[in-house]
Amino acid sequence: MTMTKEHIAESLKGIQDYICQQLEQADGKSKFQEDLWQREEGGGGRSRIIKEGNILEKGGVGFSAVHGQTPEKILQALSLPPSDFFATGVSIVLHPNNPHVPIIHMNIRYFEMSNGTYWFGGGIDLTPHYVVKADAQLFHQKLKVHCDSHHPEFYNLFKKWADDYFYIPHRQETRGIGGIFFDHLNESKYGLSKEQLFSFVKATGMLFTELYVPLMKTNSTFSFSPAEKQWQKIRRGRYVEFNLVYDKGTKFGLDTNGRTESILMSLPPEASWEYDFQTQPGSKEADTLTHLKKGIDWTNERT
Amino acid sequence: MTMTKEHIAESLKGIQDYICQQLEQADGKSKFQEDLWQREEGGGGRSRIIKEGNILEKGGVGFSAVHGQTPEKILQALSLPPSDFFATGVSIVLHPNNPHVPIIHMNIRYFEMSNGTYWFGGGIDLTPHYVVKADAQLFHQKLKVHCDSHHPEFYNLFKKWADDYFYIPHRQETRGIGGIFFDHLNESKYGLSKEQLFSFVKATGMLFTELYVPLMKTNSTFSFSPAEKQWQKIRRGRYVEFNLVYDKGTKFGLDTNGRTESILMSLPPEASWEYDFQTQPGSKEADTLTHLKKGIDWTNERT
Repeated sequence: MTMTKEHIAESLKGIQDYICQQLEQADGKSKFQEDLWQREEGGGGRSRIIKEGNILEKGGVGFSAVHGQTPEKILQALSLPPSDFFATGVSIVLHPNNPHVPIIHMNIRYFEMSNGTYWFGGGIDLTPHYVVKADAQLFHQKLKVHCDSHHPEFYNLFKKWADDYFYIPHRQETRGIGGIFFDHLNESKYGLSKEQLFSFVKATGMLFTELYVPLMKTNSTFSFSPAEKQWQKIRRGRYVEFNLVYDKGTKFGLDTNGRTESILMSLPPEASWEYDFQTQPGSKEADTLTHLKKGIDWTNERT
Repeated sequence: MTMTKEHIAESLKGIQDYICQQLEQADGKSKFQEDLWQREEGGGGRSRIIKEGNILEKGGVGFSAVHGQTPEKILQALSLPPSDFFATGVSIVLHPNNPHVPIIHMNIRYFEMSNGTYWFGGGIDLTPHYVVKADAQLFHQKLKVHCDSHHPEFYNLFKKWADDYFYIPHRQETRGIGGIFFDHLNESKYGLSKEQLFSFVKATGMLFTELYVPLMKTNSTFSFSPAEKQWQKIRRGRYVEFNLVYDKGTKFGLDTNGRTESILMSLPPEASWEYDFQTQPGSKEADTLTHLKKGIDWTNERT
């Protein structure tokens, strides 16, 4: 079977369907609203939005498949002459209502140019408002098992990549407890064929609900105080800072006249900024900050 | 009298004092809390923060005077060899509680290098959650009278500069109704001496409370609904988008390892994002959006 770009896009659409269905079932109240959109220069997408759920306060699961002339910025970065491109992907950010449930982000994407250049990219990372060690360990252990089944180096490489990518320099903290991040993945590295790489990417997408649904179900049963809700809004403020100041996907989308509402689907329903907010020594909030660092080995039980 | 950098910094400090005192009096409840800070590489500042006032929900009036080696980014931009710099300024952003009171921003600054290069910069711009024509006209008329008393071209030039600067491309809207913005002002342009330019800059600072206090007092007497408060939070979300994605001062500060809490003092106490939020046709919210455009001549009574 030849793996065409159309085939890849169709597979990703199926993953979007699967994830939305699983999330609706786990939420038990709200349904995704679909918003179909077209891109003037070619292609379009289907944004699926959920809000005011039992568990999900605001979230989006987006699919897009766009094509046209390769943006100048990419051509420059790769020193390439003008060409056409095709890009497809699934992108997710979920903001739960309960601060004990983490924010999660997942993205899988495929890019190809008319000159034959192609690559896969993606990642999953978790941003708990309150870091729960056992949850963080299980999240990373599941990611490691998943990665190991495709390539022995993937977990270590992509875990470090996520630590470096999801970092907020001006706060000197990571966005959350990381996960995996990868980009420019093609058969020139790691000895895997395009088919094998796509298997890894698809499996990353299919792992999403297995990672997140248990956290939704269990952690949403914990009660929370107004002070904990306020802490969540402050952490969401950091999420906004990362996405608007550093996230390459967001910047690229805004720079290349992408669809604003789909790009900024990641922003939280409510965020808060307090001047020089300080946690109480010994509090759960202070403890969480100690875990927002690069290089923590969450797969080690003694971490 | 020789106008030294120390003299300029002392004058700006005095303007900070004056503004804080006037704002406390107008607010009638909260007082500014002072936060003195030092910069490892040289200099420091005094941040003044107000919160939970009668009128001001969150605001900052910052003064800083820093020095050291000129950041690489500035040297590159100006094609200059390494040198020392001195920079001082007053920066203000105020977020009122009542959505009928506008957000306001003011900044005046002075920069010099050991090679003798110097410039002034600054501006004032208003971001109403609800645009009130008469308020916008009076704001711009006062700015025009102020500018005209220093140079006949300043208002037109600096009003256009503000329209272009305070623009959010991905929303295709201006941040608010603009005001004035200027940068790299020195005696090489406009036939004004350094002393005359500093007079203009100081007068811009001293105009601040005359522009804003009447808006605080009058507009805070209007009652507002929860829906109007929510609209305010959505508009504040746009303010966050501008500041984190486009504002050169914010980017420069974060890039050069500036003091994060002072740089991000501009962010609102609470902001909100809703997917693809649409105003009701004919509503005050929809009317406001029609005024968030470049090139509106607010000094014309028929605007």
